[in-house]
Amino acid sequence: MPKETQIIPTFSLQEAQKALENHIKNLNTEGKPTDLYAPIEYIMSLGGKRMRPLLVLLGYSLYDSEWKNAVAPAIVTEVFHNFTLLHDDIMDNAPIRRGQPTAHEKWNENTALLSGDLMLIKTYQWFSEAIPSDKFALILQLFNKCAIGVCEGQQFDMEFESRNDVKIEEYLEMIKLKTAVLLGFSLELGAILGGAKPFEAAQLREIGILAGIGFQLHDDILDVYADPKTFGKRVGGDITENKKTYLMLIALQKEKETQQNELQNWINKTEFDEKEKVKAVTELYNNLNIRALAEEKMNQYFEKSYQNLDNLSVKHETQKQFLKQFLMKIQERQK
Amino acid sequence: MPKETQIIPTFSLQEAQKALENHIKNLNTEGKPTDLYAPIEYIMSLGGKRMRPLLVLLGYSLYDSEWKNAVAPAIVTEVFHNFTLLHDDIMDNAPIRRGQPTAHEKWNENTALLSGDLMLIKTYQWFSEAIPSDKFALILQLFNKCAIGVCEGQQFDMEFESRNDVKIEEYLEMIKLKTAVLLGFSLELGAILGGAKPFEAAQLREIGILAGIGFQLHDDILDVYADPKTFGKRVGGDITENKKTYLMLIALQKEKETQQNELQNWINKTEFDEKEKVKAVTELYNNLNIRALAEEKMNQYFEKSYQNLDNLSVKHETQKQFLKQFLMKIQERQK
Repeated sequence: MPKETQIIPTFSLQEAQKALENHIKNLNTEGKPTDLYAPIEYIMSLGGKRMRPLLVLLGYSLYDSEWKNAVAPAIVTEVFHNFTLLHDDIMDNAPIRRGQPTAHEKWNENTALLSGDLMLIKTYQWFSEAIPSDKFALILQLFNKCAIGVCEGQQFDMEFESRNDVKIEEYLEMIKLKTAVLLGFSLELGAILGGAKPFEAAQLREIGILAGIGFQLHDDILDVYADPKTFGKRVGGDITENKKTYLMLIALQKEKETQQNELQNWINKTEFDEKEKVKAVTELYNNLNIRALAEEKMNQYFEKSYQNLDNLSVKHETQKQFLKQFLMKIQERQK
Repeated sequence: MPKETQIIPTFSLQEAQKALENHIKNLNTEGKPTDLYAPIEYIMSLGGKRMRPLLVLLGYSLYDSEWKNAVAPAIVTEVFHNFTLLHDDIMDNAPIRRGQPTAHEKWNENTALLSGDLMLIKTYQWFSEAIPSDKFALILQLFNKCAIGVCEGQQFDMEFESRNDVKIEEYLEMIKLKTAVLLGFSLELGAILGGAKPFEAAQLREIGILAGIGFQLHDDILDVYADPKTFGKRVGGDITENKKTYLMLIALQKEKETQQNELQNWINKTEFDEKEKVKAVTELYNNLNIRALAEEKMNQYFEKSYQNLDNLSVKHETQKQFLKQFLMKIQERQK
């Protein structure tokens, strides 16, 4: 793997991010009633890594160097992602998003629900305006499949909360749907817009899905092991809420194998001191070597993603390394 | 206006309804997780007049006699309409829909919200499958505009509940957006699919919008003056909830002109006997001749709709009379 200094990509990430933020600022999100439209601008302006539109630009640049042509459709993936956040936050009763009040807190649940509906409609409207007509039918078909998957993943995630028999394969399928398919679609969208053939674009989708599953596993690990000073939210939140993360599921499996039930007891407790529970479960994870096992799984997904990428022939090979570096940053990030 | 026996339409309404119900039964609404998909089948099977898909078929038959070709796209307007019902029922906290528990009562709010999102995505997916590719871009553009209008109308409606200065023109604009644009789009969609030129289809949209405003005004009147035995829901519900209907707004205007405030006093009361309030406000409406004024307004919209329809030249003139009869049934219906 060449170092970053050794390759000269078509554009820098900073340059791309600047173009994306600029486009977001100029999105036409005005309309009446004001309270229906204001949450769209609000949630879009809260920031974030803009990972999905960056993947569109990176996928595009594998086949065409005029990456700025893909900025408008790229942003639409971010609009769709933010629609899911708006509705997920209602469903999760979440008060805070990126350090700011969630839309349903700032306005109210009904307004946030309806603004979300509008954002989903805008997703289709803006895609139809930003995508060349000869590519629109294919992309719409792929996007619909992706969007349906995201809904299925969110429903599985909610159902898992009250289930005690979630299998690890079920969990991996859930995070694939809820998180990874949109990352996969983003790469695929970029590739198609750049001129990739459908089968090449489909390979990029798989590369994005593999990295996306790794990304979500990393999130699970960080929720327990991140530095509380820089994490931005409470470390151990998943533990407190008995979230069936990969870490919890393999720990439960190990307990079952050794006929122990310390973790299960913590899960069953309805009254507990949060800090005490997080500390005890983290220690239990440490004793069972859970972090290393989760990292191993995560790295497997990323490695498989890189392997598929390495095996793919693209028009601009330098950009392939640039994409790989981007995925490695996701793999190595410390929140 | 010829009587129904004098014209021989391409198809009977019964025949059309049967084809629609049959298509709804065969919609592929299966998938996993089951609870995400089940509410779609549930709400679609609750029945209703299927007014929107019937308008698609009627619009289509003005230009082409093979009306069965339009059944599949017609159903999608009903899917979209039912998506709005699913989300509206959450927002209105409604326990009952067509005599059955609403989806959020039968499952839960989160599931109903997410199933609604899925139905909106399915709307786009099924449109893209049912509409010929050469007409898809135009129809998508028209549909997006319609769907955005429906969201705007719903938000206006919610905001009017807590406003005491709603103007009659604002109210008419709200019901145009919330109810009428989808009826207009349905006629337009049918016309385009049947082979109408875009400007002819746009005239049919206007005809549908005018009838749609009339339809909503009729709903307002029925809420006060329907026969309680056949109405299916509580008569006077709008009065109890201080809904700013056309009747209430003109009554308030008349009170203002004569410097009375009986109605305003009823609106301001936080504690009251529901029956007493409905009786008092209805009497007040009677004294002010509100029903006749509302019917006059409603009839104006329908008349204007018929006038535009009469002036429109279409390929199958007989079907024009058939459409007019259908709109007249909406005008004259007794719930």
